[in-house]
Amino acid sequence: MTMNALPHGALSLSSLDEQILQPGVKGLPISEPLRQGAIAVQGWNVLHGDTSFPVAVLKTAALQHNLDWMRAFCERHAVELAPHGKTTMSPQLFGAQLHNGAWGITLANAVQVQVAYRFGVRRVLIANQLVARSDLRAVLRLLHDDPDFECYVLADSLAGVARLAEEAAAQGLKRALPVLVELGLSGKRAGCRTPEEAMTVARALAGAPGLALAGFEGYEGLIASSDHASDLKAVEHFVDRLCALALEADDEGLFGTAEVLVSAGGSSYFDLVARGLARLHGLSRPLRTVLRSGCYLTSDHGIYQRDLEKLDAREGVPPGQGLRPALEIWSVVQSRPEPGLAILSMGKRDASHDAGLPVALLHHRPGPGEPRALPEGCAIVKMNDQHAYLRFPDGDPLNDMLAVGDLVGCGISHPCTTFDRWPLLLAVDEDYAVRFALNTFF
Amino acid sequence: MTMNALPHGALSLSSLDEQILQPGVKGLPISEPLRQGAIAVQGWNVLHGDTSFPVAVLKTAALQHNLDWMRAFCERHAVELAPHGKTTMSPQLFGAQLHNGAWGITLANAVQVQVAYRFGVRRVLIANQLVARSDLRAVLRLLHDDPDFECYVLADSLAGVARLAEEAAAQGLKRALPVLVELGLSGKRAGCRTPEEAMTVARALAGAPGLALAGFEGYEGLIASSDHASDLKAVEHFVDRLCALALEADDEGLFGTAEVLVSAGGSSYFDLVARGLARLHGLSRPLRTVLRSGCYLTSDHGIYQRDLEKLDAREGVPPGQGLRPALEIWSVVQSRPEPGLAILSMGKRDASHDAGLPVALLHHRPGPGEPRALPEGCAIVKMNDQHAYLRFPDGDPLNDMLAVGDLVGCGISHPCTTFDRWPLLLAVDEDYAVRFALNTFF
Repeated sequence: MTMNALPHGALSLSSLDEQILQPGVKGLPISEPLRQGAIAVQGWNVLHGDTSFPVAVLKTAALQHNLDWMRAFCERHAVELAPHGKTTMSPQLFGAQLHNGAWGITLANAVQVQVAYRFGVRRVLIANQLVARSDLRAVLRLLHDDPDFECYVLADSLAGVARLAEEAAAQGLKRALPVLVELGLSGKRAGCRTPEEAMTVARALAGAPGLALAGFEGYEGLIASSDHASDLKAVEHFVDRLCALALEADDEGLFGTAEVLVSAGGSSYFDLVARGLARLHGLSRPLRTVLRSGCYLTSDHGIYQRDLEKLDAREGVPPGQGLRPALEIWSVVQSRPEPGLAILSMGKRDASHDAGLPVALLHHRPGPGEPRALPEGCAIVKMNDQHAYLRFPDGDPLNDMLAVGDLVGCGISHPCTTFDRWPLLLAVDEDYAVRFALNTFF
Repeated sequence: MTMNALPHGALSLSSLDEQILQPGVKGLPISEPLRQGAIAVQGWNVLHGDTSFPVAVLKTAALQHNLDWMRAFCERHAVELAPHGKTTMSPQLFGAQLHNGAWGITLANAVQVQVAYRFGVRRVLIANQLVARSDLRAVLRLLHDDPDFECYVLADSLAGVARLAEEAAAQGLKRALPVLVELGLSGKRAGCRTPEEAMTVARALAGAPGLALAGFEGYEGLIASSDHASDLKAVEHFVDRLCALALEADDEGLFGTAEVLVSAGGSSYFDLVARGLARLHGLSRPLRTVLRSGCYLTSDHGIYQRDLEKLDAREGVPPGQGLRPALEIWSVVQSRPEPGLAILSMGKRDASHDAGLPVALLHHRPGPGEPRALPEGCAIVKMNDQHAYLRFPDGDPLNDMLAVGDLVGCGISHPCTTFDRWPLLLAVDEDYAVRFALNTFF
């Protein structure tokens, strides 16, 4: 792995590089407007204290490793990837994913599709029901105006099918809109609760003018109980049911597209999904199986790290060779108000707190040298909007050493709810030198 | 109260009205670029389903009521208001607050100050230690370049004072930087833990070249236990300690500014703070007492509504005459996958979840007419990144009635963590007609 594995050029988007950033962007230490592309030549280093704090950094070596890893995984399992773009909503990262083999980008709603389209994404899977009139119209407008734009949507009810058909007709769409039937899980989120319901929706799609049944979709990531072994079985069973639906719809001649699309796969069980989808044989037309993991790209130091360790064990990935955490938040010690407590200049506005608090990793006094690992027992125990509480055990040497102005690097748990806190993240090499910026559009 | 109590002109910022919005902004139903100022003449109505969903709306009548209410409160108590701008980070709302009597805007860090400065705010209280070199420089640069810009910062340690003095000297600041000593609470966030520590910092500030002791600051809002009566006593005691520090520093001749500033007051106990600060007499120079509530402006349907009801009871405010919730998130029913459950098109990306889940308030089928209150027992019980789970009791008539495509209006708990999810919010009148847009800069 080279130090600058993901060079600026690979992620460059000229329209964003040319934009002028005003003072007041989180992480940016500027007092004058700055062309975004010029960040590359400022010579900033997070460890030297050059940036504003808090700052969100993406480690380019880990990103490139993860892009390579997932491409190899998908090739090995003969499955496609439409990574969930809602995780990052970053055009540069969408570009990196598409350049590294992704078949398309998954998104959650019409506004996200508009962002992706604006920055060049031309194949989208909306892993959601699209029901609001204005949102349907926004997506249909893109399909109407650009014959090169492809977009799949979900349906899980006859009411949903009727709304799709009505708007497709109203917008005069010349192509049939490809729709996947969503299979759900009892007590969980959207999606048909039984195969019978799913087939009813599939038949309605097959008979709806302007729509085409394109396949089946589900999200197994909601399966998470205290019984891990039982969860794994439930995931396998769920994928099997998805595959059975595809066969049944094929038997009935319901598909309206040249190929059948079957999609599942979040970031915790995508190996089981890939193996399950590989068992689907016997369709009368070509099959495309699509995973949708979004968090693989950055992983984390929390829930996904734990889930991915289990995935690595299942896949036989040697320790240290799996997906790597790429996202860190660095902040500054702003107060040492009492022994055992440091107050950091980051809070709920800066780092995820919905799936575990940030993980305190590294300490550094601004200047040369490498950051040091924080000792066991040092932990973020609470966050307010703009502050984090770092506690360490009594008697810990850090108790005397950690000073106002020192830097603390934290990992996070659940990338989605950290990315959406940062309009701009800084890509850094392994020395924490800032190489370029990445934008998000939430 | 008129239907359009807060007209567009009062909140207009021409630089933002002139900006061109691209498709892909949450809430906006546009497929072509649109000048922001033109939103006022689009004729959109949320209840007609004209916007994208989810959409964040601010009710202008409630905003104006709250602005008036707080102005009257401050006049009655002879106290100033520097509302915490971190709540909204909205230049138009900063403008509305300043036009309605606010003395300044409180902010949490250098980047927030840069945003406020960019949009015309010229008096800022940074209710935080400012310690990172780049952040100190950003603020000192504004002070250096603009003699009309005023900015107060906090210190709670000798290390902090030394950093401030060092950077003030390095930047050649011609004016002394006014600094407030922060008094904290044992076991809580930043701030000196004892009056003795606070006086040590005050004396250091008095002796530091380039700095001036300007007063004392504390944040009583962290006092929240299961014993409310005891909390109220603790708040009063805390404010008394702040006042005692001001007298002690005055006795020692430590102040370096023309007037003494004493500030406390979040959004839960600002009445107690105002009454406590009013007891401060006998200083040798003019006193300015400053509250910093940020959430008064929109209130909420959760923690602050509950705290404000108690405040109203203490103040003798008649029911219905207190601060009013102004912020709602409207989303669409995207799935009715099983009895008693509706899946809404909003999630953690759209509404606060750190101090209670959103409160389901209203139901409306897109079209004319008024929204109807959701019955008791209907509740958001869970959120994912992009979805909310609305549960209602078995046998509830809504179980049959609520359909895919219907709109649900939710209140939130804790405005700060909803505002930061929306780059743009839509101001609506009492009929939910969209009047104009407000921007945020997080």
